[in-house]
Amino acid sequence: MINRKMLSLGSEPSAIRELFSYGLARKAEIGEDNVFDFSLGNPSVPAPKSVAKALERAASQSGQTIHGYTPASGAYGTRQAIVENLNRRFSTHYTADDIYLTCGAAASLSITLRAITSGNPHKQEEVIVLNPFFPEYRVWIEQASCKVVEVATNPKTFQIDIAAIQSALTAKTRAIIINSPNNPVGTVYSEESLIELGKVLRVASKDFGHPIYLISDEPYREIVYDSAPSWIANAYENTIVCYSWSKSLSLPGERIGYILVGNKVADASDVRYAIAGAGRALGYVCAPALFQYVIEQCIDEPCDIDTYKHNGNLLYTELSRMGYTCIRPQGAFYLWVKALEGDAQAFNRWYTLCQQLA
Amino acid sequence: MINRKMLSLGSEPSAIRELFSYGLARKAEIGEDNVFDFSLGNPSVPAPKSVAKALERAASQSGQTIHGYTPASGAYGTRQAIVENLNRRFSTHYTADDIYLTCGAAASLSITLRAITSGNPHKQEEVIVLNPFFPEYRVWIEQASCKVVEVATNPKTFQIDIAAIQSALTAKTRAIIINSPNNPVGTVYSEESLIELGKVLRVASKDFGHPIYLISDEPYREIVYDSAPSWIANAYENTIVCYSWSKSLSLPGERIGYILVGNKVADASDVRYAIAGAGRALGYVCAPALFQYVIEQCIDEPCDIDTYKHNGNLLYTELSRMGYTCIRPQGAFYLWVKALEGDAQAFNRWYTLCQQLA
Repeated sequence: MINRKMLSLGSEPSAIRELFSYGLARKAEIGEDNVFDFSLGNPSVPAPKSVAKALERAASQSGQTIHGYTPASGAYGTRQAIVENLNRRFSTHYTADDIYLTCGAAASLSITLRAITSGNPHKQEEVIVLNPFFPEYRVWIEQASCKVVEVATNPKTFQIDIAAIQSALTAKTRAIIINSPNNPVGTVYSEESLIELGKVLRVASKDFGHPIYLISDEPYREIVYDSAPSWIANAYENTIVCYSWSKSLSLPGERIGYILVGNKVADASDVRYAIAGAGRALGYVCAPALFQYVIEQCIDEPCDIDTYKHNGNLLYTELSRMGYTCIRPQGAFYLWVKALEGDAQAFNRWYTLCQQLA
Repeated sequence: MINRKMLSLGSEPSAIRELFSYGLARKAEIGEDNVFDFSLGNPSVPAPKSVAKALERAASQSGQTIHGYTPASGAYGTRQAIVENLNRRFSTHYTADDIYLTCGAAASLSITLRAITSGNPHKQEEVIVLNPFFPEYRVWIEQASCKVVEVATNPKTFQIDIAAIQSALTAKTRAIIINSPNNPVGTVYSEESLIELGKVLRVASKDFGHPIYLISDEPYREIVYDSAPSWIANAYENTIVCYSWSKSLSLPGERIGYILVGNKVADASDVRYAIAGAGRALGYVCAPALFQYVIEQCIDEPCDIDTYKHNGNLLYTELSRMGYTCIRPQGAFYLWVKALEGDAQAFNRWYTLCQQLA
């Protein structure tokens, strides 16, 4: 009577996780500097010095407050610092009440999906994702008793294909998840396409008689190479922003992020309460207290983009020279490379052979 | 189409949370030292100095490893340190693979309940809790599509009532949650009663043809006043231990704990995989990396019990002198006091009246 679904989720082989474990084992054998780990999305840039300073400051504080429970939605000071930063950068008007701090983007998405869907599998509600997408989206969508609807992007640019989304929208569509800059392809969605997407979702929401939420998964928001970061929620009022400092402050293991629901979101108050309820239901109590403090201290810290841009361009140029096909990344730190050998399995066989010969 | 259940979980008034918010507001008004906050289980003892030292040590480390993703089950070094500590103290033989690090006890329980139950509401699986119990158990049990079966404890001592449990066990029973030292009554279950409980569960598992798991929720394990901490899993092989350092190291806001599944647990390997799957399904990625490091550094730190014992005895003695009825706490830091006014509502009305007169 073990849960079969959980057993399968926990035991299915994951190429990414296996590579990560292999990398850890190799680092132990031949030294950290001799292994280039391209497995998990661990930033190659270390956390900024201000994080270490904030930790030192925290360590010097006596009393129990610094490690104590915060309210479930997070410490007021941290939430206030976040919205002040956003309002200044993006000319928005959010308040601390719009923010619910989470244990990272995975928690943000998992909680949001549970909050805005009925949880009734008989309703067969649908959530749209854009191909290729971060594979865990499927897990969280299915856990919310919804169906994953995959929609293709432009095969040359990986930009949003508005017509494809339009034809995928049905009366059962509850939400669409987008991720720009994108993991795994490195695309940044153009402003025009986001505005167009907003229009399409606005019309569909009206036609179907219920809001279709845009879940904007933004851990890479700050990591754009040739433009300023943009505020996607400006393009569509029913946008729920899921954020994490995993990449922008290089803190992926610390599990700190947020969900933002502005007042323009349909049923904003109910959505916020349902988010709090879903957090509680899943066993989240509050985001890690010390990192709430760190974030408050480091909120205006810029992200070190140059390294990623340099590495991205270098890899793109050299791989292209070798004959590989991929798009030049515009943000994040991923490359989506077409295997010369035909497919990933063939590449792996070839790679394994090379290792054996080496 | 907002999730009604999540909405209700997020919006229902919670006396505990309201008192906590009221306390925060009053602290802002009249100063931290003038408010005695008895709302949440925030320890009154600050984290030990070794925690601050470990934070300083972490802050002085460059590179991205300290804040990077760890494996989903946690850093090997931390898991190894935990089992070495347990094996030394309790003469057990656990290995690092038995440990799955979590974002605190709430995550441990929520994940465990999903892992060891089918998730099929039509099966009407049951989980036993002992009255009075930590109210969030109900949320997590129901979220795992199971029914909460409340079983009374001895009304004078709040010790386990073996006969009551025996008559509550059915073919649908999947697990029983116990919590010793107990929140909210402060009882420590006697060794004899735990051995007796183990016998009863062993027989029932055999009779019903499937293992009945004992989920031992142990955040207060170290906080016992007049004896040494005991290892509950010794009493019954199918014990899954849910732990957190929230209380023993005064780190409730940091969300760091574990689930331990030893080799004697029925279907141990499947249970561990299902736990990993449930963690993934709920949006947990890994326990906070920095506190995994802190725990490894502070694993042998003793818990400051004297303050709790002193306060518990003082409150017990003085409240008893005033005419209140409660048991002398044997551990944890709670008192379960019978209201002189008849019930909690009457007490609140009286208290509110006093405030208005003041």
